[in-house]
Amino acid sequence: MDKFNLNDPLFATYVIAASLTILKAVAMSWLTVFRMIGVNGGYRSPEDIKKTPMNPAPDPAQLLPNERVERVRRVQMNDLESLPYFLVAGLLYILTQPSLRLAQWLLYGYVISRLLHFIAYLTGQIHEIRATLWTVGSLILIFMSIRTLLAAVGV
Amino acid sequence: MDKFNLNDPLFATYVIAASLTILKAVAMSWLTVFRMIGVNGGYRSPEDIKKTPMNPAPDPAQLLPNERVERVRRVQMNDLESLPYFLVAGLLYILTQPSLRLAQWLLYGYVISRLLHFIAYLTGQIHEIRATLWTVGSLILIFMSIRTLLAAVGV
Amino acid sequence: MDKFNLNDPLFATYVIAASLTILKAVAMSWLTVFRMIGVNGGYRSPEDIKKTPMNPAPDPAQLLPNERVERVRRVQMNDLESLPYFLVAGLLYILTQPSLRLAQWLLYGYVISRLLHFIAYLTGQIHEIRATLWTVGSLILIFMSIRTLLAAVGV
Repeated sequence: MDKFNLNDPLFATYVIAASLTILKAVAMSWLTVFRMIGVNGGYRSPEDIKKTPMNPAPDPAQLLPNERVERVRRVQMNDLESLPYFLVAGLLYILTQPSLRLAQWLLYGYVISRLLHFIAYLTGQIHEIRATLWTVGSLILIFMSIRTLLAAVGV
Repeated sequence: MDKFNLNDPLFATYVIAASLTILKAVAMSWLTVFRMIGVNGGYRSPEDIKKTPMNPAPDPAQLLPNERVERVRRVQMNDLESLPYFLVAGLLYILTQPSLRLAQWLLYGYVISRLLHFIAYLTGQIHEIRATLWTVGSLILIFMSIRTLLAAVGV
Repeated sequence: MDKFNLNDPLFATYVIAASLTILKAVAMSWLTVFRMIGVNGGYRSPEDIKKTPMNPAPDPAQLLPNERVERVRRVQMNDLESLPYFLVAGLLYILTQPSLRLAQWLLYGYVISRLLHFIAYLTGQIHEIRATLWTVGSLILIFMSIRTLLAAVGV
């Protein structure tokens, strides 16, 4: 019995959710890059205002925080406090052999909650919306981890 | 021989340590939330001072850094530079088939060192105490990674 | 067929790359520590300017950002938006059973790109060099994740 077979629906569910989560996270880095290019600023290192082909007219103001860039960085930080833990928690949860349906709800639910959280954050929705979406993802993470912990201690 | 069986004491040791680590990390997010509610501030996004049911009397000062909130954020950042790596390093280390006793010392030792580090940081203990507890966790992480690396290159 | 055998060249490739990645990440923490000791500052918590054996002459200026320290912290943040995701993406990618040669190019290529990125960042090279090295690692991460996703959905 190979638990790590991509043809096993349970493991495939995790791999799909994990891959989407990773691609979402990497997309934040690229969005930061695109926004820095778009506003021609929001840089953070002194050497970024050296005159180069991509920055022909450097200006110290390019090192000031830019809200369009900072917003994506906040999204990215919010990802960081959750996504890496989800990637491990999801894998270990799958090893407790939950029902496929429950695993799909939890794993895909997490991914969807994070995508919606991203949209709400990027478009500056009120805190209540963002907090609700964040809470969904966080509760899924907590549920999976407690379930895994109980399985490992033999309860 | 299934290395990923929750009935295998070695793997269960990792799963228990990993689950506790993840729950600890997620708890930091919730502690940040509770402290932001407690001080009614420490927010970071402009939209967080829109008038809403949960923030009926918004004030620009709510966006200023608040030390009670920032302290938890520093704990969280400290977690981030270690916990995600521990979660992977611990799993790979288990695959080198160390003795159960050594694995328990390292994995549970890491978790305990991080919990004590959290308490020391949250209560503002002097740097020496915090640094010592941080060092214990970091050395465990380094030891496991080097041991795993040597096993993989066949030494 | 044990996919998680350290004697399997494919899995060993991942474990070597992952261990080096983790050790690199942990080294950033220690480099921050060494630089804070070197400049006797760059601290972030109020309690770090209490008089202690390791800080016999505390000064509020020790809490100001110090560029030598902040630079390593930026490197570390850059690691955080990529390394934890690579550690999971690489493991899942290996499970799609790619050719050993391709896996070696991708996994070792990622590690090398990140080491060169670190050197470029630490020595303050112009943004173009840093960005190019960062892009190599990011594209490897994206490629592996998409490949894994397609394998999991059965394409």
